[in-house]
Amino acid sequence: MPEIRKDPVFGQWVIIASERGRRPNEFTLPPNTATSANCPFCPGREGQTPPTVCERLGPDGKWKIRVVSNKYPALTPDPAPRCGETGPYQSEEGLGIHEVIIETPGHGLHMDRMPEADIADVLSVYIDRVRALKSDPRIKYVMIFKNHGRNAGASLSHPHSQLVGMPMVPTRLSQEIEGAAKYMSERGSCVFCDMAAAELGSGRRLILREGPFVAIAPYASRFSFETWIMPVAHASHFEALPPGDVPALASVLKKVLSMLSGSVDDLAYNLIIHTTPVHAPSAAHYHWHIEIMPKLAHVAGFEWGTGFYINTVSPEEAAETLRSGRKYKG
Amino acid sequence: MPEIRKDPVFGQWVIIASERGRRPNEFTLPPNTATSANCPFCPGREGQTPPTVCERLGPDGKWKIRVVSNKYPALTPDPAPRCGETGPYQSEEGLGIHEVIIETPGHGLHMDRMPEADIADVLSVYIDRVRALKSDPRIKYVMIFKNHGRNAGASLSHPHSQLVGMPMVPTRLSQEIEGAAKYMSERGSCVFCDMAAAELGSGRRLILREGPFVAIAPYASRFSFETWIMPVAHASHFEALPPGDVPALASVLKKVLSMLSGSVDDLAYNLIIHTTPVHAPSAAHYHWHIEIMPKLAHVAGFEWGTGFYINTVSPEEAAETLRSGRKYKG
Repeated sequence: MPEIRKDPVFGQWVIIASERGRRPNEFTLPPNTATSANCPFCPGREGQTPPTVCERLGPDGKWKIRVVSNKYPALTPDPAPRCGETGPYQSEEGLGIHEVIIETPGHGLHMDRMPEADIADVLSVYIDRVRALKSDPRIKYVMIFKNHGRNAGASLSHPHSQLVGMPMVPTRLSQEIEGAAKYMSERGSCVFCDMAAAELGSGRRLILREGPFVAIAPYASRFSFETWIMPVAHASHFEALPPGDVPALASVLKKVLSMLSGSVDDLAYNLIIHTTPVHAPSAAHYHWHIEIMPKLAHVAGFEWGTGFYINTVSPEEAAETLRSGRKYKG
Repeated sequence: MPEIRKDPVFGQWVIIASERGRRPNEFTLPPNTATSANCPFCPGREGQTPPTVCERLGPDGKWKIRVVSNKYPALTPDPAPRCGETGPYQSEEGLGIHEVIIETPGHGLHMDRMPEADIADVLSVYIDRVRALKSDPRIKYVMIFKNHGRNAGASLSHPHSQLVGMPMVPTRLSQEIEGAAKYMSERGSCVFCDMAAAELGSGRRLILREGPFVAIAPYASRFSFETWIMPVAHASHFEALPPGDVPALASVLKKVLSMLSGSVDDLAYNLIIHTTPVHAPSAAHYHWHIEIMPKLAHVAGFEWGTGFYINTVSPEEAAETLRSGRKYKG
C-alpha cells in the first residue's frame, strides 16, 4: 500500500509505492518485440486491466476511449493507515485515485495523427473525470498527464494518459500558484495573461495562435522545445472549459504535437495540465495551461543539484524551428 | 554566450546555453564503439581539451588528476551583457566558472574500483578548487557533481566530475537551507544531525557507519537506492573538512559506490555535494552532505507536474539490500 512521506527539509512529499515497481515495461524488451501482440491496452485484452471505470463507444458499439484504474497505482482509495510522526519524520496515508485513460483502440495511433474529433473526445473525458473526482471532498487536486516515449518515462507505448486525484496540492503547483499570486500583488495582473500578450505582441516565441488558444515557447524554457498551450483569455480552471472551445483546443494540440514530431526525431515528451485546485474558487491570478516537455537530453546532476536547468536550444530558436517545419539537427 | 533567464512565475533560473548543444556524446554512438580510442580525457589527448587549470602528478611525473575548463560551459567568466527586463521577463549575465575534474588517467577506472588513496586525492582537489574559486567575490556558490552513466546524463564515460561556480545560490539549495533554518527555529536542532541520530539509533535505513561519517537511505528518498553520506558531527562547509578526515570519506564513498554497483545492474547515478554558500559564515542549521541518486527509472510526467516523486523501492528495503550485498531484482 502506498505511503506518502514528507521530506523533513523541503516539506516535499514522496510517494513510496513498492507495488509500482512490479509493473510491466515493454521498453525493456528488445526494440522490435514491443508490438501490439501482448499490449494490455489493445482491444480484446480488456481482462488484463482492472475493470472499466467509464468508456466512450464508437458507432460500431465498441469502445473508442476506456478509463480504467491503474493496475500499479501510485495512490489508492483505501490506503494503509499512516504511521504518524517519529523523530524528524512525518508520513500521510497514500490516499488517492490513479486512473489510466486509454485514448484509442489503435495501438500506434498517437495524438499527432489522431483525428481532431477523437482528440476532442479525449479532452472531454479528461473534463468529465475531473468533475467526477471532485465530488470526493478528500481529493484536493487532479493531475492529468501523459508520458509519451521511453525517454519520457512511458512504460507502455499504446496511446494513454493518466489522471491522479490526490489529497493535497502538489508542491510544484502550490509554488506556481504562490508565484502567480505574488506577481499579481506586485503588478496587478495575471502573469500568464501578460506572457500571452507579450508573445502575441513580439511573435519571437510564438508557435501558433488559433481561436481562443495560443502556443508559445516559454521565455525561461527548462527543456529544449518546451511548449505551453493556454487560453488567451483568463481562465483558472481547466474543467470549466466551455464545451464549444474543446474542438479548438484539440486542433491546437494536434498541430503542436505534429510540429514537435516533425522537428524532433524520435520525439518523447511529458504533457501536463496545470490547473487550479478543484475546490478553490475561480482565481484572478492563476491561469490553467498545458505544458509539453520534450525529453531530448537526460536531466543530469547539475539540474538535480541546483534546481535550475540548462537548456541548449533557446526558446526563440525552438519556436522558429517549429513554425518553419524544419528538422532540428541537434 | 550563456544567458540566465528567470522564470516569471517560480523565480527559478534557467541557463540558456546553445553552445553546450554542440558537445560530443559518445553514448549516441553504437554501444561497442564507445571506447578509449577517441576519448578526449585519456592521456595523450590533452590537446583536445582546454588547457590544464591545475593537476596532480603521480610518482612517474605524469598527471593523475587533471582539472580543465569545460569546453562547452554552462556559464563563462566573460558572459554577454544581460538584456535587462522587458515585460514580465528578467535575465542575468551567464557569469560563472565551469570546470571538469578528470579523476584518473584510467578510462574505465571508476570510483567504486579506484584505490582509496586516489579517491582521497580527488576529494582534496575538490576542496582546493572550492577554496580557489571562493577568492572571486562574484562567485556565491560552488556546486560539485558527478554524472555516471548514460541514464544519469553523462556524455563521456571516462571518470570525471564537474564543478560550477555561480553568481547566485541555486534555487534548490536556498530552499534546502531555508527548510533547515525553519526546522532549527521550530525544534532547536539541526535537521541533518537529527536524521543522522535517528538512523544510527534505529538502524533501519543505515547503510554504513565508518569513523566520522554515516551513509543512510533517506526517509523520503525520491529515487530508488538514493544514498546520502554525511559527517555525524555537525559541519556546515564541505571545504572546511579537516585533511585528516579525507581518507575516511574516500573509504566510505568507495564502499557505498561498490555496494550500489553490486546491487544495481548497470548502475547510473548523479552525485552532488550539498554545502553552505562559500561566503556564508559557519551555520548551526545547515550540514553539508553528499547525495547519490541512482537512476533506475526515467523521471516521468507525474514527477515533473507535481514536484513530488514516486519511489518504488522503500529506503528500508534499499538499505537492507545494500547491507546484505544482494542483487536488486527490480
